[in-house]
Amino acid sequence: MLRKKDKYVVAVVGATGAVGREMVVILEQRRFPVSDLVLLASERSAGERLEFNGKNVAVGKLARDSFKDVDIALFSAGADRSLEFAPAAVKSGAVVIDNSSAFRMDAKVPLVVPEVNAHAIASHAGIIANPNCSTIGMVVVLKPIHDAAKIKRIVITTFQSVSGTGKQAMDELAQQTVSLLNFRDVETNVYPHQIAFNCLPHIDSFLDNGYTKEEMKLVNETKKIFEDESIRITATAVRVPVFRCHSEAVNIETEKNISANEVRAILSAAPGVIVYDDPKKNIYPLAIDVAGKDEVYVGRIRDDESVPNGMNLWIVSDNLRKGAALNAVQIAEHLIRETSSQ
Amino acid sequence: MLRKKDKYVVAVVGATGAVGREMVVILEQRRFPVSDLVLLASERSAGERLEFNGKNVAVGKLARDSFKDVDIALFSAGADRSLEFAPAAVKSGAVVIDNSSAFRMDAKVPLVVPEVNAHAIASHAGIIANPNCSTIGMVVVLKPIHDAAKIKRIVITTFQSVSGTGKQAMDELAQQTVSLLNFRDVETNVYPHQIAFNCLPHIDSFLDNGYTKEEMKLVNETKKIFEDESIRITATAVRVPVFRCHSEAVNIETEKNISANEVRAILSAAPGVIVYDDPKKNIYPLAIDVAGKDEVYVGRIRDDESVPNGMNLWIVSDNLRKGAALNAVQIAEHLIRETSSQ
Repeated sequence: MLRKKDKYVVAVVGATGAVGREMVVILEQRRFPVSDLVLLASERSAGERLEFNGKNVAVGKLARDSFKDVDIALFSAGADRSLEFAPAAVKSGAVVIDNSSAFRMDAKVPLVVPEVNAHAIASHAGIIANPNCSTIGMVVVLKPIHDAAKIKRIVITTFQSVSGTGKQAMDELAQQTVSLLNFRDVETNVYPHQIAFNCLPHIDSFLDNGYTKEEMKLVNETKKIFEDESIRITATAVRVPVFRCHSEAVNIETEKNISANEVRAILSAAPGVIVYDDPKKNIYPLAIDVAGKDEVYVGRIRDDESVPNGMNLWIVSDNLRKGAALNAVQIAEHLIRETSSQ
Repeated sequence: MLRKKDKYVVAVVGATGAVGREMVVILEQRRFPVSDLVLLASERSAGERLEFNGKNVAVGKLARDSFKDVDIALFSAGADRSLEFAPAAVKSGAVVIDNSSAFRMDAKVPLVVPEVNAHAIASHAGIIANPNCSTIGMVVVLKPIHDAAKIKRIVITTFQSVSGTGKQAMDELAQQTVSLLNFRDVETNVYPHQIAFNCLPHIDSFLDNGYTKEEMKLVNETKKIFEDESIRITATAVRVPVFRCHSEAVNIETEKNISANEVRAILSAAPGVIVYDDPKKNIYPLAIDVAGKDEVYVGRIRDDESVPNGMNLWIVSDNLRKGAALNAVQIAEHLIRETSSQ
């Protein structure tokens, strides 16, 4: 358990990755009370330096003994590294906020989006999981609707940016694009097929049921976060040639009747949500506009007449910020607030 | 009514556009029995020349008297030009196959995808309508499923390429991409927002119900082609930074139970469909692979457990070929075959 302090020793594991860098930026932007920042990465990246609060902080090599005196460890270095090093961090006395999929479906690990289920943080036993980027954006918007009208079914189609895969994928999109515009062949390393000027219905690996792990994360994580196993969900997750922000076309059916106007009113008052919805004036959320924003944007809210109590929405969120780094830091903020009030 | 001939005078209206050029290519590729090819376009493009069967054909200026001796007129110059000039072509004795939205929902005009409802061609009174590009790809795949298990509801999310808008939109995507990779500002002329590295949930104009015309085309045209007003449909149409081919995530509910394996078997035998579905080997349809292909490709066929008799599919078709030019030429082929058998 975290002890109350004025400032905390915070570790960022995977500090040189796309999400890790964003975590460092957000800790500074939100003036998180950091006494000491410990940056950790694999051997390949150790030795790099990152700016934090005007200082140049060296990145150390991640090891089991890296967590001495660390109060809060933000992990974003993939599920394998979380499985290997998070228990060591907890043993050293740190609370781990893990951005990987390693512990998300573990019944003893709370899976938290602060706007939705901050109450779950208190039940942690050393590890708190950050949901998948495509799940976070969606649940922030859907929870207020679920509370008002009970969502029975969700059909999700995602348009996910390459930054969700990491920095190498962003480089691959740029390089492939340059090659194609110069009539050269493309090289594919990160993805199994060309991503430039193409859409890949393939994110993470395929399971025996024909769905990808990414699609099943949307299904299973949403149920866990909503604490509602009865909600029925299906998903198609698609990678698109966009650098940053995930867009999602979401179709819902609710138990109670609720109109698009009522949903707009509810979401306008919801934490972490911006309603951006005046399509006749060409106003709807766009990946290029939401990049760098903290809130989840929603537009194209309209009644779906093809089913009783149906509705369509278009949701866009910054997958590196709210979908990953920001959500983790928000969990840390709740954690220290709870600690101070104990 | 078309009179039986060995070869026909064929006009292509909008010959210099993205679809018009493809029509000329396909007439040649499929050895359509053309005695004389009449190429027509607006004043701006008149005078250009296009290759056809080794000859260089000049593009003439479209006028009401352009259709003397024309047997079949393929129109792809926008709804306004179709409304203005198609009646003149019919009056001159031509059968018009119109790729615009002008006559599609006219009860007296058959709306035809030959693999689905070729029988409707016979009822024409001078004009036959070619459906919208995003509708054609979907109905070719869904009709055999509808026949086997009766589709009750469809939730569609499209990933539509810029060639659906035309050649200027393809140039805009290329130019914006070059600008961004050179850290220059982008210019937007064709679309209301940047399309490079972005997704626009906006195709065609917005209606009062919050849907775009493109989305309602998917709803209304599918019902008309299937001759089934009871089928319930909702759609989200999205423009993506892809040059050619439309991809679609399609969720269906059927009345009868049918498994993904049964659907795969039915579609493997269906005309105009290629089942391309072995995801664990990274085999699924992709826009870059389907470009230039005549068939509609389908993959990611999987049972949707969130609803009784649910199924998800991923459909990709070449919007310029099967979605427009090829479908129009196929209608013309049926037309002359019917004529010869009368």
